[in-house]
Amino acid sequence: MTTQQTMNILLCPDSFKDCLSAQEVIEALATGVQHVFPEAIITKIPLADGGEGFVQTLLTALGGQLISIQVKNPLGRLTDASYGILGDKQTAVIEMAAASGIELLKPEERNPMLTSTFGTGQLLLDAMQRGCRNLIIGIGGSATNDGGTGMAKALGYRFLNIHGDEIAEGGGELAQLHHIDTSKVTALLKQTQITVACDVTNPLTGTHGASSVYGPQKGATAEMVEKLDENLQHLANCIEKDLDKTILDLAGGGAAGGLGAGLVAFAHAELSLGFDIVKEQTQLEKAIQQADFIITGEGKMDVQTKQGKTPWGVAQLAKKHHKPCLGIAGFLGEGYQELYQEGFTSLLALPNGPISLQESIQLASELLADKAEQAMRLISFYRH
Amino acid sequence: MTTQQTMNILLCPDSFKDCLSAQEVIEALATGVQHVFPEAIITKIPLADGGEGFVQTLLTALGGQLISIQVKNPLGRLTDASYGILGDKQTAVIEMAAASGIELLKPEERNPMLTSTFGTGQLLLDAMQRGCRNLIIGIGGSATNDGGTGMAKALGYRFLNIHGDEIAEGGGELAQLHHIDTSKVTALLKQTQITVACDVTNPLTGTHGASSVYGPQKGATAEMVEKLDENLQHLANCIEKDLDKTILDLAGGGAAGGLGAGLVAFAHAELSLGFDIVKEQTQLEKAIQQADFIITGEGKMDVQTKQGKTPWGVAQLAKKHHKPCLGIAGFLGEGYQELYQEGFTSLLALPNGPISLQESIQLASELLADKAEQAMRLISFYRH
Repeated sequence: MTTQQTMNILLCPDSFKDCLSAQEVIEALATGVQHVFPEAIITKIPLADGGEGFVQTLLTALGGQLISIQVKNPLGRLTDASYGILGDKQTAVIEMAAASGIELLKPEERNPMLTSTFGTGQLLLDAMQRGCRNLIIGIGGSATNDGGTGMAKALGYRFLNIHGDEIAEGGGELAQLHHIDTSKVTALLKQTQITVACDVTNPLTGTHGASSVYGPQKGATAEMVEKLDENLQHLANCIEKDLDKTILDLAGGGAAGGLGAGLVAFAHAELSLGFDIVKEQTQLEKAIQQADFIITGEGKMDVQTKQGKTPWGVAQLAKKHHKPCLGIAGFLGEGYQELYQEGFTSLLALPNGPISLQESIQLASELLADKAEQAMRLISFYRH
Repeated sequence: MTTQQTMNILLCPDSFKDCLSAQEVIEALATGVQHVFPEAIITKIPLADGGEGFVQTLLTALGGQLISIQVKNPLGRLTDASYGILGDKQTAVIEMAAASGIELLKPEERNPMLTSTFGTGQLLLDAMQRGCRNLIIGIGGSATNDGGTGMAKALGYRFLNIHGDEIAEGGGELAQLHHIDTSKVTALLKQTQITVACDVTNPLTGTHGASSVYGPQKGATAEMVEKLDENLQHLANCIEKDLDKTILDLAGGGAAGGLGAGLVAFAHAELSLGFDIVKEQTQLEKAIQQADFIITGEGKMDVQTKQGKTPWGVAQLAKKHHKPCLGIAGFLGEGYQELYQEGFTSLLALPNGPISLQESIQLASELLADKAEQAMRLISFYRH
């Protein structure tokens, strides 16, 4: 029974994958909080880390405009793709999956020998042409394995074979590459800062590389994987020779079929943790400093949450500023107790009893409100 | 951040039916509490309310001895039955189900026309003969519908037909009853206080009576139910005539096939809520007054918990003394939120994610420890 002052409660969850967006999670949590503290000041910061919902997260948090343009999909067909321009009109937020994502192809069409990141390059170019000089790009969910060469082609790079002719797009064609011509590259690129939200550390090639680890889920056979890996190795050699850049050992270079490495090599981009970008853009740390209680969460939390996931990032900041931080998850998995050392004051799971995954997803909003209420009630005894 | 003083934590759950005894629930909760407050003073009071585990509950809480004797089962076969004599050597705790319970018969043997509470009377008599003058009897789970006449016969009552001969036992024979002879009743009965733990309010007869409501689950057909109800009505008339006692309108008289009414009529017993008896015997209220935090619980908690169930009784006392009280359940069902008005500070359910009932039962100890830890962690921020 410490104080009677109004509670400042910060709600900053990630999305619950295949279930609720971060914004929907927040609304559910707010309902539960208000049952207990009707006069609480609730700050809402939806967080997402470069995957699904990244653009929406930053647009919601910061305001801005959704731009929709026609670009090429991974197989060259025209498709509508959206990206965001934030309120400052200087910053664009792009998801590579909008133009080059695996969900854009039918399962039988998926073939990383052929797929290209050209459409992603079109999105980058469009944003630059509209005056954005600060681009943030999330690179989860790609259908491609082209080392970002398609993207670079859209920005003016020319990938030439031994005869000086442009090679075709797709990871399978890179064996033909002999020379990278930069003479037609858009001048806008030099004036633009590109930051990549990248949460994997895989290198471009090898057993932990783009082709071996992610190729199969994009439709590559074992033979293709071998060929694709050789081709990315060859691309890296050409980049070293023609652009004087070393990308083979870059952590995260293997993200999105080598688009991570490609953005560094072709667009002088910087790779960053998705959470760090969102944290900075949303001024999360300031909100944490002002909060009396913080609720974050994600669909599943377990020992892997420590590996840089969003709720972990929140908990680390909460710990730094000595704030109580509750994590709520649909499922608390193996080793979740280790998270108590990472800044989580406590952790709660959604179910109110035995329940199937499907039911749990259907009832997620209601259960989130219940959990927030259950937690707030426990502390209310000491806060009223 | 109020105080640094040692926490006094009271653990007083009911059993989790078909899963863990109240004592096992307590040990699991204690594990979780100690993860957060290793120096907490933990008071353990297992609670059960007259059903399964009643004898064990009081023996565990108060110390004492388990007595095992041979008695007649509901069909007259000899069976071993146990009851407890508490440390004071004056108080016996008896479960009617030990001698006259439905679990003692195979499904095809269950027939409330024939079954008798004689064995329960033998337990009462044995306790009195060993010097107990304070008997507490829990009457859940009966196989009988004899209005307690079998029990009374064991204590010396004689149930005579119009020819002055003793009638046979069982609810079906009561139509033959003409006169109740008290001349051979044990003299010990007058010196003994009998308290019945009874959590139902059904009257002896009628649509809400023993035969209609509980007869079918004891093996009665629709015709039998009608006959049994008439017979209990007739018994009540004979009791009125020969013993000058009115039992027809007694709330709880219909418990255990009319054993509730029979204990009042034949053994001047008092009907009481199981929780009230346990509360008094365990000095629960004193423990609640001394506690800083109380954890109770039951397998399932929902809107019906308000109808006098053990955790509700705990919450009411907690409310009276302004203590925080957490309820933990395997399953929080329909309308559980109404319990927040009844003294529960908060409520938590066991699962850490989607889970089947069977798995939840298997992992119950672990999940109970998890929940206690999750709750203690939440308040620890304000208590450390």
